[in-house]
Amino acid sequence: MKTTSNSVSHQQVSRSGKSVSRRSLLQGAMSIGALSAFGSSVTRAQDSSASADKNLKKRSVILFQGDSITDDGRDKKILDANIVKALGRGYPVLAAGELLSDYPDHELKIYNRGISGHKVPDLASRWQKDTLDLKPDILSILIGVNDLWHKFAFGTNYQGTVADYENGYRELIQRTLKALPEVRIVICEPFTTRTSKDFAPLAEYAAVSKKLADEFKLTFVPFQAVIDEATKAAPAEFWLWDGVHPTTAGHALLLQAWRRAVEI
Amino acid sequence: MKTTSNSVSHQQVSRSGKSVSRRSLLQGAMSIGALSAFGSSVTRAQDSSASADKNLKKRSVILFQGDSITDDGRDKKILDANIVKALGRGYPVLAAGELLSDYPDHELKIYNRGISGHKVPDLASRWQKDTLDLKPDILSILIGVNDLWHKFAFGTNYQGTVADYENGYRELIQRTLKALPEVRIVICEPFTTRTSKDFAPLAEYAAVSKKLADEFKLTFVPFQAVIDEATKAAPAEFWLWDGVHPTTAGHALLLQAWRRAVEI
Repeated sequence: MKTTSNSVSHQQVSRSGKSVSRRSLLQGAMSIGALSAFGSSVTRAQDSSASADKNLKKRSVILFQGDSITDDGRDKKILDANIVKALGRGYPVLAAGELLSDYPDHELKIYNRGISGHKVPDLASRWQKDTLDLKPDILSILIGVNDLWHKFAFGTNYQGTVADYENGYRELIQRTLKALPEVRIVICEPFTTRTSKDFAPLAEYAAVSKKLADEFKLTFVPFQAVIDEATKAAPAEFWLWDGVHPTTAGHALLLQAWRRAVEI
Repeated sequence: MKTTSNSVSHQQVSRSGKSVSRRSLLQGAMSIGALSAFGSSVTRAQDSSASADKNLKKRSVILFQGDSITDDGRDKKILDANIVKALGRGYPVLAAGELLSDYPDHELKIYNRGISGHKVPDLASRWQKDTLDLKPDILSILIGVNDLWHKFAFGTNYQGTVADYENGYRELIQRTLKALPEVRIVICEPFTTRTSKDFAPLAEYAAVSKKLADEFKLTFVPFQAVIDEATKAAPAEFWLWDGVHPTTAGHALLLQAWRRAVEI
């Protein structure tokens, strides 16, 4: 069992045509003698409602798009679905683990195409190749903090306004719905726990993301609200180590909020 | 938001003295207007029973020990708790994300000290430094597949028998309970989906792990039973890409079984 990290990185999950629902899988597991003593306190999918299955059809392609929060160190040389190193260390890889194991018969394909530092115009420039060509059934987008941040940091001297963010984001959505009329788009709210004056306008960007979700009747994940609430239980840096990028606890919190909103 | 993977790797979660239970955190989150439309189908900790809190006291140190399945590419230069790269890509990092986010007020410290290729005698040789010195409150051990595998592969020509595995494992447990009388030890069943004759004896090693758990009244996690059941829903390589090492779906499955058994 000496494995190189390389061999682990290329692990890929393949699927057969067997069809057993995750509920029956978990119920089956619970009925094994060895498992019968288990409490039900921390099971995840066991009590899932029918809505979860309804919201995730078989052979769905799920794509996570965004910036460094989504990227989180993914290996960009690996383009295939469901490969752990290609999914980074953030909420997309946690989503892959949970969704693949909760829906083992669904033959899901899960991709991460977040790129560190990206803003709406950066997404637009690679949208065809990195989004439309993958034909996602569920497209999750988390974008916005750099549309503000790069105006005053990193020496990029970005000049875009919140109106540019809104218009560019709307164009991305329209372009996506035109190319993929059946896609379900999930809009994730950009967030921060930084309290400096520079970051105060992020609330406007967050409001735009909500406005666009409402305008197109898209699923909205209120990450800022979730993080604000979480900071009552543990300090900001417990969730976002630098006020922007999540810790492992922060990513787990994001995923929980994401699954609750998306209802899968 | 250009971050190097290095800066992300050193993210660390610190804690203040605030005390808010995870239940109140999640209930609080659910009461926010923005979240009120969320279904409860996929929430994880929300319906946790009181037993979960009872089983995890504040400031607990949780240590994962084992071989490559536990190691899974962790950065061994980082020795501190709760750091994502130090936790690898397997069930320990998933455990850290979930437990830290579910118990934000608990000031948990979570370590991974699995090392690829290790057997019981390898654990024994580093037990003081890598286990006892960390003073875990919960010690999870997954060991055994190499005690068999290295007898016929990797050119290591290991000569240990299943009796050596049993005696060595018992000594580890006794030594641990003597040094740390209050520790809760969790015994994880070694597992495989390989069907070759060489791997058939792994069932004997698995039985020994169960026997030792019973002998010392330790928590036992029946990984083999869980994986056997899971292969009814998706093929073996969906869970263990080479019949030994878990995919991201496999790790998520292991963690779910682990939490159900440990009841935290």
